[in-house]
Amino acid sequence: MEAGWYRRYMVPALVIRGTIFMKNLVRSLIVSLTPSLTEEVIIRGWIYRLRELSKTTFIILRDCSGEVQCVADSALIRSASLKLDEPVEIKGKVRADSRAKAGFEVDVLEISVLNQITQTLPFNASSDISDIGIETILNNRPLSLRNDAVGNIFRIQSAILHYFRQFLRERHFTEIITSKIVSSGTEGGTNLFEIKYFERSAYLAQSPQFYKEHGVAGLERVFETGHVYRAEPHKSSRHLTEYYSLDLELGFIESPEEVMQLERELLNFIFEQLNQNYSDVLKIYREKPLPQMLNAPVWEFEECLQRLNQHFGRTDLVDDLDPEAERQLCQLAELETGIAALFVIGFPLTARPFYTQPRGQQGASQSFDLLFEGIEITTGGQRLHQREELEKALINRGIDPITFTNHLQVFSMGMPPHGGLAIGLERLTARILHLDNVREATLYPRDRYRISP
Amino acid sequence: MEAGWYRRYMVPALVIRGTIFMKNLVRSLIVSLTPSLTEEVIIRGWIYRLRELSKTTFIILRDCSGEVQCVADSALIRSASLKLDEPVEIKGKVRADSRAKAGFEVDVLEISVLNQITQTLPFNASSDISDIGIETILNNRPLSLRNDAVGNIFRIQSAILHYFRQFLRERHFTEIITSKIVSSGTEGGTNLFEIKYFERSAYLAQSPQFYKEHGVAGLERVFETGHVYRAEPHKSSRHLTEYYSLDLELGFIESPEEVMQLERELLNFIFEQLNQNYSDVLKIYREKPLPQMLNAPVWEFEECLQRLNQHFGRTDLVDDLDPEAERQLCQLAELETGIAALFVIGFPLTARPFYTQPRGQQGASQSFDLLFEGIEITTGGQRLHQREELEKALINRGIDPITFTNHLQVFSMGMPPHGGLAIGLERLTARILHLDNVREATLYPRDRYRISP
Repeated sequence: MEAGWYRRYMVPALVIRGTIFMKNLVRSLIVSLTPSLTEEVIIRGWIYRLRELSKTTFIILRDCSGEVQCVADSALIRSASLKLDEPVEIKGKVRADSRAKAGFEVDVLEISVLNQITQTLPFNASSDISDIGIETILNNRPLSLRNDAVGNIFRIQSAILHYFRQFLRERHFTEIITSKIVSSGTEGGTNLFEIKYFERSAYLAQSPQFYKEHGVAGLERVFETGHVYRAEPHKSSRHLTEYYSLDLELGFIESPEEVMQLERELLNFIFEQLNQNYSDVLKIYREKPLPQMLNAPVWEFEECLQRLNQHFGRTDLVDDLDPEAERQLCQLAELETGIAALFVIGFPLTARPFYTQPRGQQGASQSFDLLFEGIEITTGGQRLHQREELEKALINRGIDPITFTNHLQVFSMGMPPHGGLAIGLERLTARILHLDNVREATLYPRDRYRISP
Repeated sequence: MEAGWYRRYMVPALVIRGTIFMKNLVRSLIVSLTPSLTEEVIIRGWIYRLRELSKTTFIILRDCSGEVQCVADSALIRSASLKLDEPVEIKGKVRADSRAKAGFEVDVLEISVLNQITQTLPFNASSDISDIGIETILNNRPLSLRNDAVGNIFRIQSAILHYFRQFLRERHFTEIITSKIVSSGTEGGTNLFEIKYFERSAYLAQSPQFYKEHGVAGLERVFETGHVYRAEPHKSSRHLTEYYSLDLELGFIESPEEVMQLERELLNFIFEQLNQNYSDVLKIYREKPLPQMLNAPVWEFEECLQRLNQHFGRTDLVDDLDPEAERQLCQLAELETGIAALFVIGFPLTARPFYTQPRGQQGASQSFDLLFEGIEITTGGQRLHQREELEKALINRGIDPITFTNHLQVFSMGMPPHGGLAIGLERLTARILHLDNVREATLYPRDRYRISP
């Protein structure tokens, strides 16, 4: 075992009695420390705060499990010239102290710096970074994650993912993984990124739509969490060329209302869990806890246009909503129901993909959006499940069904009626935390201009 | 609500008394049926088995939650000309019957076919498909999923993913999502798929290696489950151009032994859960339950070469193992320890990526593989965490550190010592279920010749 590296950076003044550092001692996570511990402990983490008084130095040490105040003799510490954010190892003794938040502190016996900071940091883990621009944050992503203002965004995102999957597993959904390399697009071939695939061309998948429908044909209820790609050249605060899609699809439904009800329950579960387990974090980002979603209303698209006209004098919308209309509708929903969220169903069939079910005979579709606190975070609906109808829909759009033979074949092999939805994880995270830009909720955002880091 | 579609396919003989089909009745999942139910029920699913006797027809109906035997009057059923694998809706009454496996059957009152099967199926959900070739399975993936012999592979895969994440969350790991579109490779630029990214070129990520190390710099312990891409032209039973990597990385370690111990505990947890919750499935694919992994041995690379020489007369291996050697070593490990698994550590530094820690002074590295039941399923190790060492390692390989400036910068901003590993999900699934080809454990495999479906 090559264990020499950490000794090199030990603070010499603290190497006492020639002990072999670490001997017989295993690192403890901070969360596992208790005031009753009597043995020496080894803890490792970053220096989060550092306060040097003439005699005593206070170090707040943080690891992935928590933080603890450590107390050292300033004379010894000084020679180490510790810096904020340095990763260190401390050998110490727990001492009960009723004044400390945790009920104890750690007296430092030895400290070693595990890797020196050799450059001026643009900010620290403990800095107020609310004035620091998004570009600086992105260019210093690892350091920014060490700061709670950013790190907590991704802890919440990780929790959303966890609760999303947990809810669906409990409802008999099977997680699937489908290829992101496809031979053509699901919606006709625009906005596709092309890949050089050996001697030919392939494309990055815009959506797992076809695959999740195929999943339904086999497993009835499936979900996938994964990247999707859109070669959209515009740069906006809500678009990315690569985003993470929470997809689900289920068979044997009767109507898109069942899919919307599932999403109500799904989001309600996620929100309840976040309210319960992450309330300290949520309250930093938003005034109120996350809403109860079970009563989120469903408004018809035509009805939405009428309301927008009536309340905001808008007459410019035809077959889709725009960001302003999404905000306005959420405002209206909040006034009427107390929840700034609503489902909009019945978008014009022509404005939705070919596989969408019609809703009635007037050109509306069984396709819905969920608007949440001012922005669309979901698109879903009921799909056509009969091969002849899909073929007709393709022909109506001037597409030769031959192009989709492999896909269409699945529909004559026992495909049940089905529907599903897709939630943009970055948008959902951004809305939950009231972030203005989806980039703040994306570790490494990609857009027309950015492909690194 | 547009609910007309299913009426069209109702079996006319069964539409009785002009009732509005489905009125006041909600579909029940099969798992929720009990012998004590007295009300009429609606169930939906696929016809899994169909046995027509002169008076009575027996239908085994399956949904995502289970299966149940349904009993119908053959005279009524005949006009419907039901087919295996058709998705149907049944209105019926539960009748307790001690001869039935579940303790009850469902008497069919009405049945409607939800989507007719209009082509000859290459096989059925209930067929024995053990003789059907992989190409037919892949070309009929949705249908094959309806057959347990294939569907269970992906149920197990979904469970592996679930237990992987659960174990790590409980150990303070945060799930991260990192970009798969990168400006260059992590390991020098070979085997990369090129993407046309607007006016320039980008590449598909070969590994989240750099990003997960960056994650450690911020969050200490991170994991990611996601696709990685290798433009490897060879077609073998163990390689794919797109596979799903279970990645983890953790900070403040002392040695790669800690990473191996974590993997022992991780796999042991996954295997225990599978043995407990999926024993019925496992025993179809493998003779013995999954092994206890806590005692999986660690052998030095040099020691492995010696053993291979001694036991198999092999003298041809120099700086890596080959598939045959992996099988041979697992055989030896099983003889010695009872477990057909071992960690091999100390691969030659020159054969491992530039960021690998040396192990001692003789050119070995802190990089390990885990061989499990005959195949390498993990690569991991301890990484260099000091910027100067990384720069030296790059220079030694003839790479100008300038190329990696953004990455290297992270190492002078408080990067702790760290290590991690990556498990190939398809290989792990294939080994657990004793499948010969990783394609059997990949819903939509990609290789040089296959990009659809």
